[in-house]
Amino acid sequence: MATILTLAGDGIGPEIMTQAVDVLNAVNNKFELGLTLESGLIGGVAFDATGEPLPEETLERARAADAVLLGAVGGPKWDAIERSKRPERGLLKIRSELGLFANLRVAKLYPQLVNASSIKPEIISGLDLLIVRELTGGIYFGEPRGIRTLENGEQQGYNTMVYSTSEIQRIGKVAFELAKTRAQAAGRPAKVCSIDKANVLEVTELWKQTMIEIQQADYNDVALSHMYADNACMQLIKDPKQFDVMVTGNMFGDILSDEAAMLTGSIGMLPSASLDEAGKGMYEPCHGSAPDIAGQDKANPLATILSVAMMLRYTFKKEEAAQAIEQAVSDVLDDGLRTIDILDRSETGLKQVGCQEMGQAVLAKL
Amino acid sequence: MATILTLAGDGIGPEIMTQAVDVLNAVNNKFELGLTLESGLIGGVAFDATGEPLPEETLERARAADAVLLGAVGGPKWDAIERSKRPERGLLKIRSELGLFANLRVAKLYPQLVNASSIKPEIISGLDLLIVRELTGGIYFGEPRGIRTLENGEQQGYNTMVYSTSEIQRIGKVAFELAKTRAQAAGRPAKVCSIDKANVLEVTELWKQTMIEIQQADYNDVALSHMYADNACMQLIKDPKQFDVMVTGNMFGDILSDEAAMLTGSIGMLPSASLDEAGKGMYEPCHGSAPDIAGQDKANPLATILSVAMMLRYTFKKEEAAQAIEQAVSDVLDDGLRTIDILDRSETGLKQVGCQEMGQAVLAKL
Ligand SMILES: CC(C)[C@H](C(=O)O)[C@@H](O)C(=O)O
Ligand SMILES: CC(C)[C@H](C(=O)O)[C@@H](O)C(=O)O
Repeated sequence: MATILTLAGDGIGPEIMTQAVDVLNAVNNKFELGLTLESGLIGGVAFDATGEPLPEETLERARAADAVLLGAVGGPKWDAIERSKRPERGLLKIRSELGLFANLRVAKLYPQLVNASSIKPEIISGLDLLIVRELTGGIYFGEPRGIRTLENGEQQGYNTMVYSTSEIQRIGKVAFELAKTRAQAAGRPAKVCSIDKANVLEVTELWKQTMIEIQQADYNDVALSHMYADNACMQLIKDPKQFDVMVTGNMFGDILSDEAAMLTGSIGMLPSASLDEAGKGMYEPCHGSAPDIAGQDKANPLATILSVAMMLRYTFKKEEAAQAIEQAVSDVLDDGLRTIDILDRSETGLKQVGCQEMGQAVLAKL
Repeated sequence: MATILTLAGDGIGPEIMTQAVDVLNAVNNKFELGLTLESGLIGGVAFDATGEPLPEETLERARAADAVLLGAVGGPKWDAIERSKRPERGLLKIRSELGLFANLRVAKLYPQLVNASSIKPEIISGLDLLIVRELTGGIYFGEPRGIRTLENGEQQGYNTMVYSTSEIQRIGKVAFELAKTRAQAAGRPAKVCSIDKANVLEVTELWKQTMIEIQQADYNDVALSHMYADNACMQLIKDPKQFDVMVTGNMFGDILSDEAAMLTGSIGMLPSASLDEAGKGMYEPCHGSAPDIAGQDKANPLATILSVAMMLRYTFKKEEAAQAIEQAVSDVLDDGLRTIDILDRSETGLKQVGCQEMGQAVLAKL
């Protein structure tokens, strides 16, 4: 008997979670997975209810659960509250407390959606790249940090970007292993591109050096290359298919994974996994809480539904159930169903649907 | 009598500088600008000759000069030397020593090159956005920094991202002023988008707050918006024309300005200016030293030539001469001349040329 904690969160979180939970219940029955679902509070709604963006109770239940499914957190409503209580802090804290250091974000182009992108089709058709982002270190968590008043009376803000060898090794290994798995499945040589700014930042110099050491010690069968973050940001636009697995720190990973997602034109489609050392994980869509469209039944639930598939694959090793979900998603796209974010108005034969209709359509395919 | 110090640097630096100097000499004569040119060493070539990437002599002559024209620095040849001696350190040091805190990077689409981009023409046609990047602060220069050995024997790399109110005010003012000038010229309301990661980093929380204060105090006529860096990276791909002036710190500016440049598909076309408080400046192409094609007469000299135009405009207030150069560049593009980086093989009537032929063609138009 395994337990999944669902945390819907803020903004469009509840709507997309409702659809994902329906799908999860359906595969749970169909494939007799024996999963139990619980729900809890995180983010702004948790702050409203308890005064904390990550209540102790949620954290304890997350620790006890076998996996966590998250919607999204944050919104203008909580912008003005004390920094330590903001919704995003709840997200950062659960990542850190659960030790979810490995964030896997896939930027994959659905052939049905090739026209939804602002990139030319020939540049992105067939795109399928994986960004491995370190998620519990770097400048996101480095100390000292804060805002202080200087002697001359003005204020100064400061944060610390910091990585130790073992943190880099741990995430590097995840990237190399995934590159090997992907290469095997695709029948081609494995490669990893490590992103740094080693020409300016010492912390990323250590990053680069450590990646080289891991590769030389244990991964001679994986080709390792290096790229500066600014150049990587350009190369993702110019020729994204040159990459297979990219590995980088928390901050560069935040930026580059969003960029990679946007290349596909369908960030509403992309799931992510955040894993600890034992493979236990939190799963969530790559997109945010989109407060501007919350409660309007406009959100795309597919990234959350696909996050369920990722969960079944990585944490529960239920490949068949995972594939069933992915196939159902592909089928509704084939049927021409589109939420507004992936609707190409120049294409005929498409039907614009809301969040609920999209979710129920996936359900019907299962 | 004004003096310009040219610093060709490494890689393709010397080739592109040769063409830019020819152009500069031509307008100098034609418009009787009375400019004197000197040349000096920076980067890897300076290290090879003197043991320093920014020799004291170069720095002194740069201080004495009225403007600096830079090619590019860096290359694999100097990757293994001691950190403090690497070519990039010379570039960072000259920026810092000359107080060039305001880096202006224009991402402008040349209509002749709309097909060189990997972005769909309708997304980028008419694109003309300005990124104002803080250049002498932030994590690039913050202390403490380094790599140390921890008690448990492993290594730890660390850098500090730091900004004080006055640093933020200074760059904010540059952005607001430029937004007003641009809006006036275009006959539309002025707007600035400030990029931060205020949901995670305290230093950028101060950034955001300070931008709001400047706007409220002195720039009520400029619309100010805010965007997280990860979202900005996405929005630049999705809908770059929503922006006019973007202002951000050193690190985000490094990444986003390269991204914006790549949107145009022609980073080989884009000049930049780095200005001090008095408007004195260093001018350089946005692209790097491209060691892979150095010495092969393949580089695009136009970004450096356009940097000369920017110099004449900003430092010397010679608008007519600046426009003459820009017109000449536009003319050679109209004639179909293309270096390889901006060559669209699917288009007919184009002629592939080398660095020298391109430079001399611009010269002939003057
Ligand atoms: C909401 C925010 C704190 C978060 C981050 O920066 O990590 C988000 O952008 C993400 O990428 O999951
Ligand atoms: C060469 C490097 C140090 C430099 C930077 O990071 O500032 C470059 O990328 C730039 O943008 O001018």
